Amino acid sequence: MRTTGGLRIHDITDSVAEAVRESGVRDGVACVYSPHTTCCIRITEPHNGFLDSFVDLLRELVPHDHYYAHDDWDKRTENICPEDVEFANGHSHCMAMLLGTAGESIPVRDGELLLGEWQRVLFLELDRERDRRWLVQVVGS
Amino acid sequence: MRTTGGLRIHDITDSVAEAVRESGVRDGVACVYSPHTTCCIRITEPHNGFLDSFVDLLRELVPHDHYYAHDDWDKRTENICPEDVEFANGHSHCMAMLLGTAGESIPVRDGELLLGEWQRVLFLELDRERDRRWLVQVVGS
Amino acid sequence: MRTTGGLRIHDITDSVAEAVRESGVRDGVACVYSPHTTCCIRITEPHNGFLDSFVDLLRELVPHDHYYAHDDWDKRTENICPEDVEFANGHSHCMAMLLGTAGESIPVRDGELLLGEWQRVLFLELDRERDRRWLVQVVGS
Repeated sequence: MRTTGGLRIHDITDSVAEAVRESGVRDGVACVYSPHTTCCIRITEPHNGFLDSFVDLLRELVPHDHYYAHDDWDKRTENICPEDVEFANGHSHCMAMLLGTAGESIPVRDGELLLGEWQRVLFLELDRERDRRWLVQVVGS
Repeated sequence: MRTTGGLRIHDITDSVAEAVRESGVRDGVACVYSPHTTCCIRITEPHNGFLDSFVDLLRELVPHDHYYAHDDWDKRTENICPEDVEFANGHSHCMAMLLGTAGESIPVRDGELLLGEWQRVLFLELDRERDRRWLVQVVGS
Repeated sequence: MRTTGGLRIHDITDSVAEAVRESGVRDGVACVYSPHTTCCIRITEPHNGFLDSFVDLLRELVPHDHYYAHDDWDKRTENICPEDVEFANGHSHCMAMLLGTAGESIPVRDGELLLGEWQRVLFLELDRERDRRWLVQVVGS
Protein backbone atom coordinates (compact mmCIF):
# COMPACT_ATOMS: atom_id res chain seq x y z
CA MET A 1 0.00 0.00 0.00
CA ARG A 2 1.32 3.45 -0.91
CA THR A 3 0.17 6.07 1.60
CA THR A 4 -0.21 9.68 0.54
CA GLY A 5 1.42 10.98 3.73
CA GLY A 6 0.54 13.95 5.94
CA LEU A 7 -1.70 12.34 8.54
CA ARG A 8 -3.83 10.43 6.06
CA ILE A 9 -6.24 7.77 7.18
CA HIS A 10 -6.93 4.67 5.06
CA ASP A 11 -9.98 2.43 5.41
CA ILE A 12 -8.71 -1.18 5.21
CA THR A 13 -11.86 -2.91 6.51
CA ASP A 14 -12.76 -4.79 3.33
CA SER A 15 -9.27 -6.27 2.89
CA VAL A 16 -9.13 -7.26 6.56
CA ALA A 17 -12.55 -8.95 6.32
CA GLU A 18 -11.37 -10.85 3.24
CA ALA A 19 -8.19 -12.01 4.99
CA VAL A 20 -10.32 -13.27 7.88
CA ARG A 21 -12.59 -15.21 5.50
CA GLU A 22 -9.55 -16.71 3.75
CA SER A 23 -8.11 -17.86 7.09
CA GLY A 24 -11.03 -20.26 7.49
CA VAL A 25 -11.32 -19.39 11.21
CA ARG A 26 -15.00 -19.34 12.28
CA ASP A 27 -14.65 -18.43 15.94
CA GLY A 28 -11.64 -16.51 17.22
CA VAL A 29 -9.79 -13.19 17.27
CA ALA A 30 -8.20 -11.25 14.40
CA CYS A 31 -5.11 -9.20 15.24
CA VAL A 32 -4.63 -6.34 12.73
CA TYR A 33 -1.04 -5.18 13.02
CA SER A 34 1.18 -2.39 11.64
CA PRO A 35 4.90 -3.28 11.57
CA HIS A 36 5.85 0.42 11.18
CA THR A 37 6.93 2.82 13.93
CA THR A 38 5.04 5.90 12.69
CA CYS A 39 1.68 4.34 11.84
CA CYS A 40 -1.27 3.25 13.89
CA ILE A 41 -4.37 1.03 13.62
CA ARG A 42 -7.69 2.39 14.88
CA ILE A 43 -11.27 1.16 14.77
CA THR A 44 -13.81 3.94 14.43
CA GLU A 45 -16.23 5.81 12.18
CA PRO A 46 -14.24 7.31 9.29
CA HIS A 47 -16.30 10.22 8.01
CA ASN A 48 -18.36 13.35 8.56
CA GLY A 49 -15.48 15.70 9.17
CA PHE A 50 -14.64 13.90 12.35
CA LEU A 51 -11.29 12.66 11.08
CA ASP A 52 -10.26 16.21 10.13
CA SER A 53 -11.07 17.32 13.67
CA PHE A 54 -9.01 14.48 15.04
CA VAL A 55 -6.05 15.39 12.84
CA ASP A 56 -6.33 19.01 14.06
CA LEU A 57 -6.41 17.80 17.66
CA LEU A 58 -3.39 15.56 17.13
CA ARG A 59 -1.43 18.40 15.52
CA GLU A 60 -2.30 20.62 18.48
CA LEU A 61 -1.24 18.02 21.08
CA VAL A 62 1.95 17.08 19.19
CA PRO A 63 3.03 20.14 17.17
CA HIS A 64 5.36 19.68 14.18
CA ASP A 65 7.38 22.82 14.99
CA HIS A 66 8.12 21.71 18.55
CA TYR A 67 11.72 20.73 19.32
CA TYR A 68 12.25 16.95 18.95
CA ALA A 69 15.66 15.53 19.89
CA HIS A 70 15.06 12.80 17.30
CA ASP A 71 15.31 15.39 14.52
CA ASP A 72 18.81 16.43 15.63
CA TRP A 73 19.89 12.83 15.25
CA ASP A 74 18.26 12.64 11.84
CA LYS A 75 20.25 15.70 10.73
CA ARG A 76 23.53 14.65 12.34
CA THR A 77 23.51 11.25 10.67
CA GLU A 78 22.48 12.82 7.37
CA ASN A 79 19.40 10.65 7.47
CA ILE A 80 17.83 13.93 6.38
CA CYS A 81 19.75 16.96 5.13
CA PRO A 82 19.41 20.35 6.88
CA GLU A 83 17.32 21.71 4.01
CA ASP A 84 14.73 18.98 4.41
CA VAL A 85 13.53 19.93 7.86
CA GLU A 86 10.00 19.28 6.70
CA PHE A 87 10.95 15.60 6.53
CA ALA A 88 12.06 15.49 10.19
CA ASN A 89 9.65 13.08 11.81
CA GLY A 90 10.23 13.40 15.56
CA HIS A 91 6.60 14.51 15.85
CA SER A 92 5.42 11.41 13.91
CA HIS A 93 7.21 9.14 16.36
CA CYS A 94 5.66 11.00 19.30
CA MET A 95 2.17 10.76 17.80
CA ALA A 96 2.61 7.01 17.23
CA MET A 97 3.80 6.55 20.82
CA LEU A 98 0.85 8.52 22.18
CA LEU A 99 -1.73 6.60 20.12
CA GLY A 100 -0.05 3.17 20.31
CA THR A 101 1.45 1.68 17.17
CA ALA A 102 0.79 -2.02 17.40
CA GLY A 103 -2.27 -4.00 16.45
CA GLU A 104 -5.91 -4.03 17.39
CA SER A 105 -7.70 -7.29 18.20
CA ILE A 106 -11.21 -7.81 16.85
CA PRO A 107 -13.49 -10.74 17.76
CA VAL A 108 -14.41 -13.10 14.89
CA ARG A 109 -17.64 -15.14 14.93
CA ASP A 110 -19.10 -17.24 12.12
CA GLY A 111 -16.07 -16.27 10.05
CA GLU A 112 -16.87 -12.54 10.17
CA LEU A 113 -15.34 -9.58 12.03
CA LEU A 114 -17.65 -8.57 14.88
CA LEU A 115 -17.44 -4.85 14.10
CA GLY A 116 -20.14 -2.52 15.40
CA GLU A 117 -22.57 -0.87 12.96
CA TRP A 118 -20.41 2.25 12.49
CA GLN A 119 -16.97 0.75 13.03
CA ARG A 120 -14.35 0.50 10.29
CA VAL A 121 -10.73 -0.62 10.53
CA LEU A 122 -8.43 2.33 9.77
CA PHE A 123 -4.72 2.57 9.03
CA LEU A 124 -3.28 5.94 10.11
CA GLU A 125 -0.20 7.32 8.35
CA LEU A 126 1.50 9.70 10.84
CA ASP A 127 4.53 10.36 8.65
CA ARG A 128 5.12 11.51 5.07
CA GLU A 129 4.28 9.47 1.95
CA ARG A 130 5.65 5.95 2.28
CA ASP A 131 5.21 2.33 1.21
CA ARG A 132 3.41 0.57 4.01
CA ARG A 133 1.97 -2.81 4.76
CA TRP A 134 -0.22 -4.28 7.45
CA LEU A 135 -0.80 -7.83 8.67
CA VAL A 136 -3.79 -9.81 9.89
CA GLN A 137 -3.23 -12.83 12.10
CA VAL A 138 -6.33 -14.85 12.99
CA VAL A 139 -6.37 -17.34 15.87
CA GLY A 140 -9.24 -19.63 16.83
CA SER A 141 -11.00 -22.59 15.29
CA MET B 1 -26.24 -2.09 29.65
CA ARG B 2 -27.65 1.42 29.97
CA THR B 3 -24.90 3.99 30.55
CA THR B 4 -25.65 7.19 32.39
CA GLY B 5 -23.60 9.31 29.94
CA GLY B 6 -21.26 12.22 30.49
CA LEU B 7 -17.89 10.45 30.67
CA ARG B 8 -19.03 7.73 33.04
CA ILE B 9 -16.88 4.74 33.76
CA HIS B 10 -18.41 1.30 34.41
CA ASP B 11 -16.62 -1.59 36.12
CA ILE B 12 -17.44 -4.73 34.10
CA THR B 13 -14.74 -7.00 35.63
CA ASP B 14 -17.10 -9.48 37.29
CA SER B 15 -19.20 -10.06 34.17
CA VAL B 16 -16.06 -10.45 32.03
CA ALA B 17 -14.61 -12.98 34.51
CA GLU B 18 -17.88 -14.93 34.42
CA ALA B 19 -17.91 -14.97 30.61
CA VAL B 20 -14.34 -16.31 30.65
CA ARG B 21 -15.33 -19.09 33.07
CA GLU B 22 -18.35 -19.99 30.92
CA SER B 23 -16.13 -20.25 27.83
CA GLY B 24 -14.36 -23.25 29.37
CA VAL B 25 -10.98 -21.97 28.14
CA ARG B 26 -8.23 -22.71 30.70
CA ASP B 27 -5.22 -21.23 28.98
CA GLY B 28 -5.55 -18.44 26.43
CA VAL B 29 -6.42 -14.80 25.84
CA ALA B 30 -9.70 -12.91 26.44
CA CYS B 31 -10.47 -10.05 24.07
CA VAL B 32 -12.88 -7.55 25.68
CA TYR B 33 -14.37 -5.46 22.89
CA SER B 34 -16.65 -2.42 22.51
CA PRO B 35 -18.53 -2.32 19.17
CA HIS B 36 -19.32 1.40 19.65
CA THR B 37 -17.43 4.36 18.18
CA THR B 38 -17.60 6.64 21.23
CA CYS B 39 -16.70 4.16 23.96
CA CYS B 40 -13.46 2.64 25.16
CA ILE B 41 -12.20 -0.31 27.20
CA ARG B 42 -9.47 0.32 29.79
CA ILE B 43 -7.84 -1.81 32.47
CA THR B 44 -6.88 0.16 35.55
CA GLU B 45 -7.66 0.99 39.18
CA PRO B 46 -11.16 2.52 39.32
CA HIS B 47 -11.24 4.62 42.47
CA ASN B 48 -9.71 7.15 44.84
CA GLY B 49 -10.59 10.23 42.87
CA PHE B 50 -8.25 9.18 40.14
CA LEU B 51 -11.01 8.67 37.59
CA ASP B 52 -12.32 12.19 38.22
CA SER B 53 -8.85 13.56 37.57
CA PHE B 54 -8.66 11.56 34.37
CA VAL B 55 -12.02 12.88 33.20
CA ASP B 56 -10.82 16.44 33.92
CA LEU B 57 -7.63 15.78 31.96
CA LEU B 58 -9.57 14.35 29.03
CA ARG B 59 -11.94 17.34 28.97
CA GLU B 60 -8.93 19.65 28.95
CA LEU B 61 -7.18 17.81 26.10
CA VAL B 62 -10.40 17.46 24.06
CA PRO B 63 -12.68 20.36 24.99
CA HIS B 64 -16.42 20.09 24.33
CA ASP B 65 -16.71 23.71 23.19
CA HIS B 66 -13.98 23.39 20.58
CA TYR B 67 -15.09 23.46 16.93
CA TYR B 68 -15.69 19.95 15.55
CA ALA B 69 -16.52 19.60 11.86
CA HIS B 70 -18.48 16.47 12.75
CA ASP B 71 -21.03 18.58 14.60
CA ASP B 72 -21.79 20.62 11.47
CA TRP B 73 -22.64 17.40 9.69
CA ASP B 74 -24.83 16.34 12.61
CA LYS B 75 -26.76 19.62 12.36
CA ARG B 76 -26.95 19.65 8.56
CA THR B 77 -28.38 16.15 8.37
CA GLU B 78 -30.76 16.92 11.21
CA ASN B 79 -29.18 14.09 13.10
CA ILE B 80 -29.35 16.67 15.87
CA CYS B 81 -31.39 19.86 15.76
CA PRO B 82 -29.68 23.26 16.25
CA GLU B 83 -31.17 23.61 19.73
CA ASP B 84 -29.52 20.40 20.87
CA VAL B 85 -25.94 21.51 20.52
CA GLU B 86 -25.22 19.82 23.83
CA PHE B 87 -25.84 16.52 22.03
CA ALA B 88 -23.20 17.23 19.38
CA ASN B 89 -20.60 14.55 19.90
CA GLY B 90 -17.59 15.53 17.77
CA HIS B 91 -15.57 15.71 20.97
CA SER B 92 -16.69 12.18 21.96
CA HIS B 93 -15.43 10.81 18.65
CA CYS B 94 -12.11 12.61 19.13
CA MET B 95 -11.72 11.26 22.66
CA ALA B 96 -12.43 7.72 21.45
CA MET B 97 -9.88 8.09 18.66
CA LEU B 98 -7.25 9.41 21.06
CA LEU B 99 -7.80 6.63 23.60
CA GLY B 100 -8.43 3.81 21.11
CA THR B 101 -11.90 2.33 20.88
CA ALA B 102 -11.39 -1.35 20.24
CA GLY B 103 -10.78 -4.17 22.68
CA GLU B 104 -8.17 -5.02 25.26
CA SER B 105 -6.60 -8.48 25.39
CA ILE B 106 -6.07 -10.08 28.80
CA PRO B 107 -4.17 -13.33 29.42
CA VAL B 108 -6.24 -16.23 30.84
CA ARG B 109 -4.63 -19.00 32.93
CA ASP B 110 -6.37 -21.78 34.84
CA GLY B 111 -9.65 -20.38 33.56
CA GLU B 112 -9.15 -16.98 35.25
CA LEU B 113 -8.26 -13.50 33.98
CA LEU B 114 -4.64 -12.73 34.88
CA LEU B 115 -5.41 -9.23 36.16
CA GLY B 116 -2.96 -7.50 38.48
CA GLU B 117 -3.89 -6.91 42.13
CA TRP B 118 -5.36 -3.45 41.48
CA GLN B 119 -6.56 -3.91 37.91
CA ARG B 120 -10.23 -3.85 36.93
CA VAL B 121 -11.80 -3.95 33.46
CA LEU B 122 -13.57 -0.65 32.77
CA PHE B 123 -16.04 0.43 30.10
CA LEU B 124 -15.79 4.17 29.38
CA GLU B 125 -18.82 6.04 28.05
CA LEU B 126 -17.46 9.09 26.17
CA ASP B 127 -20.84 10.19 24.86
CA ARG B 128 -24.23 10.95 26.39
CA GLU B 129 -26.57 8.36 27.94
CA ARG B 130 -26.94 5.37 25.62
CA ASP B 131 -27.71 1.66 25.42
CA ARG B 132 -24.37 -0.09 25.10
CA ARG B 133 -23.04 -3.60 24.93
CA TRP B 134 -19.63 -5.19 25.08
CA LEU B 135 -18.30 -8.55 23.94
CA VAL B 136 -15.78 -11.05 25.27
CA GLN B 137 -14.11 -13.48 22.89
CA VAL B 138 -11.85 -16.09 24.46
CA VAL B 139 -9.31 -18.08 22.42
CA GLY B 140 -7.07 -20.87 23.70
CA SER B 141 -7.56 -24.36 25.01
CA MET C 1 12.44 -6.63 37.03
CA ARG C 2 13.43 -3.59 39.06
CA THR C 3 12.57 -0.35 37.28
CA THR C 4 14.57 2.79 37.96
CA GLY C 5 11.44 4.96 38.06
CA GLY C 6 10.78 8.42 36.70
CA LEU C 7 9.30 7.65 33.30
CA ARG C 8 11.93 5.10 32.31
CA ILE C 9 11.49 2.88 29.30
CA HIS C 10 12.79 -0.71 29.27
CA ASP C 11 13.40 -2.76 26.13
CA ILE C 12 12.04 -6.27 26.83
CA THR C 13 12.05 -7.54 23.21
CA ASP C 14 14.65 -10.28 23.66
CA SER C 15 12.93 -11.81 26.69
CA VAL C 16 9.54 -11.68 24.96
CA ALA C 17 10.99 -13.38 21.85
CA GLU C 18 12.50 -16.09 24.05
CA ALA C 19 9.18 -16.68 25.85
CA VAL C 20 7.48 -17.04 22.46
CA ARG C 21 10.07 -19.61 21.33
CA GLU C 22 9.66 -21.54 24.58
CA SER C 23 5.87 -21.65 24.11
CA GLY C 24 6.35 -23.84 21.03
CA VAL C 25 3.63 -21.93 19.17
CA ARG C 26 4.53 -21.58 15.46
CA ASP C 27 1.54 -19.64 14.20
CA GLY C 28 -0.49 -17.42 16.50
CA VAL C 29 -0.59 -14.23 18.55
CA ALA C 30 1.53 -13.18 21.56
CA CYS C 31 -0.15 -10.97 24.16
CA VAL C 32 2.45 -8.98 26.14
CA TYR C 33 0.75 -7.77 29.30
CA SER C 34 1.54 -5.50 32.27
CA PRO C 35 -0.46 -6.35 35.43
CA HIS C 36 0.35 -2.93 36.96
CA THR C 37 -1.83 0.17 36.95
CA THR C 38 0.91 2.74 36.32
CA CYS C 39 2.85 0.99 33.57
CA CYS C 40 2.31 0.54 29.87
CA ILE C 41 3.47 -1.67 26.98
CA ARG C 42 4.40 -0.01 23.67
CA ILE C 43 5.93 -1.24 20.44
CA THR C 44 8.16 1.31 18.78
CA GLU C 45 11.72 2.42 17.99
CA PRO C 46 13.54 3.02 21.29
CA HIS C 47 16.37 5.43 20.51
CA ASN C 48 17.69 8.57 18.85
CA GLY C 49 16.43 11.01 21.42
CA PHE C 50 12.88 10.25 20.43
CA LEU C 51 11.98 8.68 23.77
CA ASP C 52 13.19 11.80 25.62
CA SER C 53 10.93 13.90 23.44
CA PHE C 54 8.02 11.60 24.17
CA VAL C 55 8.65 11.83 27.91
CA ASP C 56 8.71 15.65 27.61
CA LEU C 57 5.43 15.55 25.67
CA LEU C 58 3.80 13.27 28.24
CA ARG C 59 4.93 15.51 31.11
CA GLU C 60 3.44 18.49 29.29
CA LEU C 61 0.10 16.77 28.62
CA VAL C 62 -0.13 15.33 32.16
CA PRO C 63 1.83 17.67 34.45
CA HIS C 64 3.06 16.36 37.80
CA ASP C 65 2.22 19.59 39.64
CA HIS C 66 -1.40 19.60 38.49
CA TYR C 67 -4.04 18.86 41.13
CA TYR C 68 -4.96 15.15 41.26
CA ALA C 69 -7.76 14.09 43.57
CA HIS C 70 -6.02 10.70 43.87
CA ASP C 71 -3.16 12.37 45.77
CA ASP C 72 -5.53 13.68 48.45
CA TRP C 73 -6.66 10.14 49.06
CA ASP C 74 -3.06 8.95 49.22
CA LYS C 75 -2.31 11.57 51.89
CA ARG C 76 -5.54 11.02 53.84
CA THR C 77 -5.01 7.29 54.11
CA GLU C 78 -1.35 7.80 55.01
CA ASN C 79 -0.49 5.78 51.94
CA ILE C 80 2.00 8.61 51.54
CA CYS C 81 2.92 11.14 54.24
CA PRO C 82 2.50 14.90 53.55
CA GLU C 83 6.28 15.36 53.26
CA ASP C 84 6.47 12.83 50.46
CA VAL C 85 4.40 14.73 47.94
CA GLU C 86 6.94 13.78 45.28
CA PHE C 87 5.67 10.21 45.71
CA ALA C 88 2.07 11.18 44.97
CA ASN C 89 1.24 9.35 41.76
CA GLY C 90 -2.08 10.77 40.55
CA HIS C 91 -0.28 11.90 37.41
CA SER C 92 1.13 8.38 36.86
CA HIS C 93 -2.38 6.94 36.96
CA CYS C 94 -3.59 9.57 34.49
CA MET C 95 -0.70 8.87 32.11
CA ALA C 96 -1.41 5.13 32.24
CA MET C 97 -5.10 5.75 31.53
CA LEU C 98 -4.29 8.02 28.59
CA LEU C 99 -1.81 5.58 27.03
CA GLY C 100 -3.68 2.36 27.91
CA THR C 101 -2.17 0.03 30.48
CA ALA C 102 -2.99 -3.46 29.30
CA GLY C 103 -1.20 -5.64 26.78
CA GLU C 104 -0.23 -5.41 23.15
CA SER C 105 -0.87 -8.29 20.77
CA ILE C 106 1.85 -9.21 18.25
CA PRO C 107 1.45 -11.74 15.43
CA VAL C 108 3.68 -14.84 15.64
CA ARG C 109 4.69 -16.79 12.51
CA ASP C 110 7.22 -19.64 12.25
CA GLY C 111 7.71 -19.30 16.00
CA GLU C 112 8.98 -15.70 15.79
CA LEU C 113 7.43 -12.32 16.66
CA LEU C 114 6.44 -10.52 13.45
CA LEU C 115 7.94 -7.19 14.51
CA GLY C 116 8.79 -4.58 11.90
CA GLU C 117 12.43 -3.74 11.16
CA TRP C 118 12.59 -0.88 13.70
CA GLN C 119 10.06 -2.15 16.23
CA ARG C 120 11.00 -3.17 19.76
CA VAL C 121 8.73 -4.16 22.66
CA LEU C 122 9.00 -1.56 25.43
CA PHE C 123 7.86 -1.54 29.05
CA LEU C 124 7.12 2.01 30.28
CA GLU C 125 7.45 2.82 33.95
CA LEU C 126 5.15 5.81 34.62
CA ASP C 127 5.69 5.82 38.38
CA ARG C 128 8.68 5.89 40.71
CA GLU C 129 11.16 3.01 41.18
CA ARG C 130 9.30 -0.26 41.69
CA ASP C 131 9.48 -4.03 41.34
CA ARG C 132 7.58 -4.90 38.19
CA ARG C 133 6.77 -7.92 36.12
CA TRP C 134 5.22 -8.55 32.74
CA LEU C 135 3.57 -11.58 31.17
CA VAL C 136 3.50 -13.12 27.71
CA GLN C 137 0.61 -15.35 26.74
CA VAL C 138 0.87 -17.05 23.33
CA VAL C 139 -2.15 -18.58 21.59
CA GLY C 140 -2.12 -20.50 18.33
CA SER C 141 -0.77 -23.80 17.08
